[in-house]
Amino acid sequence: MKAYLDCYPCFLNQALKTARLHTSDEKKIKHILDKVAVALPRVDFAATPAEIGREVYRIIAQESGIEDPYQQLKKIWTDKALALYPHLKKLIRTSADPLFMAVRVAIVGNVIDFGVNRAFDLEKEIEQILHQPLIINHYQRFKERLEKASRILYIADNAGETVFDRLLIEEMTKPVVYVVREKPVINDAVQEDAEAAGIAEAAEIISSGVDAPGTVLSLCSDEFREMFLKAEMIISKGQGNYEGLSGERGPLFFLLKAKCEVIARELNVPLGSLLLI
Amino acid sequence: MKAYLDCYPCFLNQALKTARLHTSDEKKIKHILDKVAVALPRVDFAATPAEIGREVYRIIAQESGIEDPYQQLKKIWTDKALALYPHLKKLIRTSADPLFMAVRVAIVGNVIDFGVNRAFDLEKEIEQILHQPLIINHYQRFKERLEKASRILYIADNAGETVFDRLLIEEMTKPVVYVVREKPVINDAVQEDAEAAGIAEAAEIISSGVDAPGTVLSLCSDEFREMFLKAEMIISKGQGNYEGLSGERGPLFFLLKAKCEVIARELNVPLGSLLLI
Repeated sequence: MKAYLDCYPCFLNQALKTARLHTSDEKKIKHILDKVAVALPRVDFAATPAEIGREVYRIIAQESGIEDPYQQLKKIWTDKALALYPHLKKLIRTSADPLFMAVRVAIVGNVIDFGVNRAFDLEKEIEQILHQPLIINHYQRFKERLEKASRILYIADNAGETVFDRLLIEEMTKPVVYVVREKPVINDAVQEDAEAAGIAEAAEIISSGVDAPGTVLSLCSDEFREMFLKAEMIISKGQGNYEGLSGERGPLFFLLKAKCEVIARELNVPLGSLLLI
Repeated sequence: MKAYLDCYPCFLNQALKTARLHTSDEKKIKHILDKVAVALPRVDFAATPAEIGREVYRIIAQESGIEDPYQQLKKIWTDKALALYPHLKKLIRTSADPLFMAVRVAIVGNVIDFGVNRAFDLEKEIEQILHQPLIINHYQRFKERLEKASRILYIADNAGETVFDRLLIEEMTKPVVYVVREKPVINDAVQEDAEAAGIAEAAEIISSGVDAPGTVLSLCSDEFREMFLKAEMIISKGQGNYEGLSGERGPLFFLLKAKCEVIARELNVPLGSLLLI
């Protein structure tokens, strides 16, 4: 999907949020915002938000001199998620339909706020989210496709969420190729983050070659693109990957939360909807 | 109060909202956003949001060629508010403390969403807002000051809200000078809007000389500034006027809703709080 003009102020919001992660110096933050602001008029809004986001995060990295401002947070989130792993595993294994529960857990991983501190609060938050219905729920087709597929391409989104992905991967009991970003961008998972989540025990980890906060095929490596085009089943996590891949054809299943008005409008669902499409 | 960096993306959001009012042509809207984006780096963020907002709206007017994009909406809102006048008048007159009810009605005028269509819905919304407590409530001091003051300076905010102001002015039973903006900016009331709300029957209407979306003394006319400095009691409506006047000394009473995180943080109240300060 292409970007909307609503994304225009939002890119500055994201820049502000990210800049604040690596400095509290208002002048430095203002400098980064200024650089992003003057770059936006040159941006082609026919591009996907993921492509524009890539430019925005490139500017931030360049101006701040820090390539991965989320590095520390990604570690903390992964550790928190790992601490929840036994609880989630039990939840899935004792469920009437463990695969469906694992799908929902994977969506929860896209939603949960690791900023909340205590493990107890996280468990409570997970339970609340698990009680929300999927506003679009193509689970039946997901299940059927999974039964037929001999290998699944699983496109990751955020670090921390990776642990929730691992639980779904383990439940699918089929060979999985887990696809991460080539370089750090926002809180998206790279090789290191996937390994920290223990994904290597359950799947093969590869990079899509992308350094955008979403999977845009034209930016991917030839190797990944070939894999994508031949795939029997593709699971795409999160909004950024949806933005990049919603226009592509293929055995695609999107697991995401509609986190902004633009996506909610595009999909004609209420803001905040949990979706399996 | 000075602007925060959070205001930076927000100015682009406001520009987007305003641009969409006078055109649906995405190219024209993008052009306006581009002009605002390249202007923001030149902005001194030690200024108040009202001063920066003034620049932003100046760019929009210049690029769109439309001086008052809210003109039609302001008329519609005022008409809707006038239709509510008898209902609100009765609500105040039958209240145990009509002055306090009128104060709360005036705050409701700053909060209500005239985008809602039917009169019935508006009455319901008003009732809901009237049931919310004032998170800061200096009504006692307001009442005492009002008893002593021989004349009140009442600084207006939005069109439509003007009708709610009129109800408070009528309840105060003291001479009131009602202060509007010099030129149209956003949905702020100018002379014409105050007259359409029937304010002329209850107060003298003057302009502050300001064309910013908030009262900034350095931008006001000498005549208004003198009036302000000599005033025995000043009522300031809304967030924009608070932003401009919160640093000033004087017998000031602010009636507003904390509509954004920046103001809420500044005042140490929850977002959305109704306030009489």
